This record gives sequence, C-alpha cells and structure tokens, in this order.
Amino acid sequence: MRRIGLGIDAGGTYTKILAVDSKGGVLRRSQVRSLPQKGGPSFVKRISRAVKSLERGLGAKAPRACLAIAGDVDPVRGVLRRSPNLPALEGFALRKSLSRALGRTVLMHNDANMAAWGCYAIELGRRRKNVIAITMGTGVGGGIVLGGKLWTGSTGSAAEIGHMRINDGGEPCNCGARGCLEAYASQYAIIRCAERLLSERTGGSLALRRKLGKGLAPHHLAEAALRGDPIAREVWERVGRALGAGIAGLVYIFNPDAVVFAGGVSQAGKLFLEPLKRVLRAESFRAPFDHVKVRIAKRSQLGSRGAALYSLEGD
Amino acid sequence: MRRIGLGIDAGGTYTKILAVDSKGGVLRRSQVRSLPQKGGPSFVKRISRAVKSLERGLGAKAPRACLAIAGDVDPVRGVLRRSPNLPALEGFALRKSLSRALGRTVLMHNDANMAAWGCYAIELGRRRKNVIAITMGTGVGGGIVLGGKLWTGSTGSAAEIGHMRINDGGEPCNCGARGCLEAYASQYAIIRCAERLLSERTGGSLALRRKLGKGLAPHHLAEAALRGDPIAREVWERVGRALGAGIAGLVYIFNPDAVVFAGGVSQAGKLFLEPLKRVLRAESFRAPFDHVKVRIAKRSQLGSRGAALYSLEGD
Repeated sequence: MRRIGLGIDAGGTYTKILAVDSKGGVLRRSQVRSLPQKGGPSFVKRISRAVKSLERGLGAKAPRACLAIAGDVDPVRGVLRRSPNLPALEGFALRKSLSRALGRTVLMHNDANMAAWGCYAIELGRRRKNVIAITMGTGVGGGIVLGGKLWTGSTGSAAEIGHMRINDGGEPCNCGARGCLEAYASQYAIIRCAERLLSERTGGSLALRRKLGKGLAPHHLAEAALRGDPIAREVWERVGRALGAGIAGLVYIFNPDAVVFAGGVSQAGKLFLEPLKRVLRAESFRAPFDHVKVRIAKRSQLGSRGAALYSLEGD
Repeated sequence: MRRIGLGIDAGGTYTKILAVDSKGGVLRRSQVRSLPQKGGPSFVKRISRAVKSLERGLGAKAPRACLAIAGDVDPVRGVLRRSPNLPALEGFALRKSLSRALGRTVLMHNDANMAAWGCYAIELGRRRKNVIAITMGTGVGGGIVLGGKLWTGSTGSAAEIGHMRINDGGEPCNCGARGCLEAYASQYAIIRCAERLLSERTGGSLALRRKLGKGLAPHHLAEAALRGDPIAREVWERVGRALGAGIAGLVYIFNPDAVVFAGGVSQAGKLFLEPLKRVLRAESFRAPFDHVKVRIAKRSQLGSRGAALYSLEGD
C-alpha cells in the first residue's frame, strides 16, 4: 500500500491541499477559498469536502493530515493563537474539528515550520540533520530542525526568526517592535528601503521610478539589479548585510549544518547571498562558519509539501 | 555505592577540580595552577595528580570526568579549537591525553555549556526542560538545554549567545565584530559604557570618578546604582535593554521554559532585570513571552558543578 501524506496549507485567500508520496513528490493537488470570515465550522466543512474529493480522485486515503497556517500556532491544543492572515479563526478548535470531519488524526503547525520540514526532508534529502530554514515573503518566517526533528519550543511558538532583533531600535517592524530581521528582509522592508533610496538619490533608475506607488515589488528590484541599476543593487546589498547579521547570530547559537532560504523573495538569492556570505566570512570563530552551508531552495512548494510529508512522520 | 561526578574547570590561571554527588552537591574540591605555557602534557600531569589526590581524600573514585574550558571546544575530537584563556593548549589532544592519565572516559565541553547544565539540573532541579543559560563575566557566554539535553551543535560550537548581533554595526566586540550582545553586557562593555557616560556628563558620581582608571568594576557600578547614583543607574538600564533585545530574540527562536543568568556580573541582577523585563513585556507575540521565566541563578559554581554532574549523565 502506498503511504500518502496529506498537507493542508491555509492562507488568507486560498487553502491548498496536497497529497504527496513518501518522498514528498506531489501526487495530486487542489485548492479552495479560505473565506475565514464565514467562521471556523464553515472553513472546516469546505476543507474536508475538498480533501474527500481529492482522495476520491486519487483512489486512496491518507492516514493522517497536517494543517499549516501562518501565525502563532498551539500544536498541542490545535488552536491558532494569533494569525495575521486568518484572524477570524483565532481561538477556534481547528485541529479537533478538522480531525472529526476527516475521521483521522490531524497535526497542526506554523507554515514556516512546515517549510523547514520541506527544506530538511525534500530540498536537502535529510542528508543534513541540523537545518535552519528562513522563509522570505510578506514577512520573514523560520523553522528549525535539530537532529532530524522539528523544534517547536515549549508552547509551539519557536523559530520566529523574523523577529530576532538585529538592530535594536532600528527600522519599525510590522510586529510593533523595531530592528527585527523582518524589518530589513521582508517584502515590505525591501520596498520601503527602495522607496527611501529612490527619494534620497535623484536621477537614474527610471524603470524603478515608474513603478513607484504602482506596485513596486521585489521582483522588479531583482530585475533592475540584474540590469545593473545602482539603487536596486544597493537595496539587495543592504538586504544581504541584514540577513548576514541575522544568520551570523543563528550560526553562533545553533551551529547548524545548513541554512536554507525559501519563499518568493528568496529567488533573488544571487543578489543578496554575496553580501550575506561576506558577513559570515568576516566572523572570527571559524569552525561553525566553515561548517555551515547557506543556500537558496531550488524546489518549490516546500511549505505545503513539507506539511504533507510531516503528516506521515511528525509529532 | 555512591555515584560521584567529577568536574575539571580549567581557567586561564587556576583549574578547579570538584567532586559532586548525584544531585550536584559538592563533596570535595581542590585547585591547581593551570600554567598553560608549560604545554599540554604538563597540564594533564598536574591535573591528573590533583584528581588522584582528591579521590584519595574522598575514599572513592568517579567513574568518568568532564573537562570544562572557555572557548570553541570540539567535544568529539576532544580538542580546544580556540581559547581566549588557554591559547597555549589549542590543538592539543587534551581529552585523549587526560583520559589516558586518569584511566577513564573524559568528556570535554565549553564551560558556559556546563554552566547551562548546572542551571538546568541544579538551579532549576530539572523542572523545566528547555533552558537557556547566559553567563555574564569577562565575556558573555551561553548554553542551551533542549528537552533535557545539552545542545552543542554540529561541530560543538553552539550557544555562543554573546556573539548574537543585536545592533549591527554598533559597539565593537572583543571578537572583532560590531554590535554583539557581549559588546553591551560583558564586564568590559559595562565598564566602557560607564567610562563614556562619566566623560560625557560632568559633575556628580564622585565615588565612580575616583575609581576611573583604577580598576572600576561592575560591582562598583552595582553599589553606586543601589545608592542612587544616576550614571550607574543609566549604565544598568542600558545593559538591561541590550539584554532584553538579545533575550527577546532567543525567546522568539527557542520558545524556552526559562532563561537563567549566571556568572559574576549577573549578581547585579536586580539592576538590569527590570529594564530587561520591560522589553519582553512590550513584545506583541504573547504566548512565548508569557510562558518564559527569566531569573538570576541563586546557586554558585554552576559551571564546575554542572561539569561534574554532566560527567555522570552527559554525551
């Protein structure tokens, strides 16, 4: 019998459902609208219907499922304590309710933790046991695998790497604090940095100026930097240095085998990896820095594939 | 038969040897001069002689021993890779040589890791399983216990908490980088901060000014702050805020049960804990911050007692 992993990746707008084989290869996928404003029971009903339909198409049933959601997840109680994308579902007994609707055990974790599992098990093929994953998107998230096990902390809140303070009192972060890594390396931080440089430095960078206030996005900055635009290059240089400061701290603390970047923004990797690695090369403790591999994930959908795989082997 | 733990805590000047019972209670202690400049074999001979003499006095023999040393220790090869206090012993096969001289297994770890074991097993009586220890002294060190196990990282270099970047590009650190936690909360950083404030602000603080250039130490600043000296109070306020930024990052990353301060400088705890806790109270993710206990260790010699206890149960 095939072992099928089932991942449910709930975002603010859509919830993706994914069945994978025991290596994380995608067997089948589908998607439903999240519509969190309709409340928890409706959300659970819609998802459970979609799961059953996907399994009918597959002709097989997954033994368990794993739900991945952005925010502060309580994996033991199976409740969303705090969620930027799905605040309407905070406090609702999601895991229990979904478990009853699906008639099987459901695990529940922060989505960046599941992306870390994807980085560990799929991207790195479990060849490295101590892995830090950093997800770069709207915010900066993270996940930690130590000795081949997910580290979720005492209350399930661990690995909020984006809120490590790298520059105390510095740039404002969406969380309300100042100087978090996220305030330098997330989508909004990158755009804020570009806007500031464009207003400070007159002349040049016409392609970027045209996008100002009209949806300037990290990928525009990546394209411009590859064309040699000096402001775009400066933006990525700053992102790389900030990430370097954050990763240096993580290497000092965890002494991991690998640090892997995943998520949309990480695809600009070439542009920020060089300044990032320059920071790491300058550190005076050599053993942990010579040991660690820093790379951009090549595979996609590591969050939902990671969750699906985790349903087979986690907790 | 009594189970006896044996710890060997090697410092730059003295090496302490300690026998403990299975609860970390001290049974007997002794001390030898480290004299590292005489080389590894002489160091090992002196220590092994002292251990044997201590065991004769005790009338019992410890089954194993654990050597604790400041610096970057390779616990697998049993070699000191980098040591601020004992550079003459770098690269020498310490563990193997000591193991042969003592006729038993010898473990070898960074001294702050052993202090963390002491904080976990002795100070907290193993009631909390996920513990971060921070040692405040000449430098700022750290140790990490996760799920009741010491986390030493992929190359044994983990938990160098003092070199987390909290203020990228900020104060210079002894390691050569800028903005490390140690550059704000170690002995040298605290004195530097006091000297700067004393030169910027004229008048007042006479007791401190008299000590300037004549061995001004953190305990003078603690005494002055308790007397209400405004500059001394400002110094501890800054130390507390810097520690707050560092601990906030550690709580976001590890989501631990407890953070414990140990070491000489930590005894000024009352003076820096209040600003530190103010930082933690302001964080917007509540679950991990409401959960974590932050405290100053009340018990002493947690490094050498931790190492002795670890010889019974570690690795």
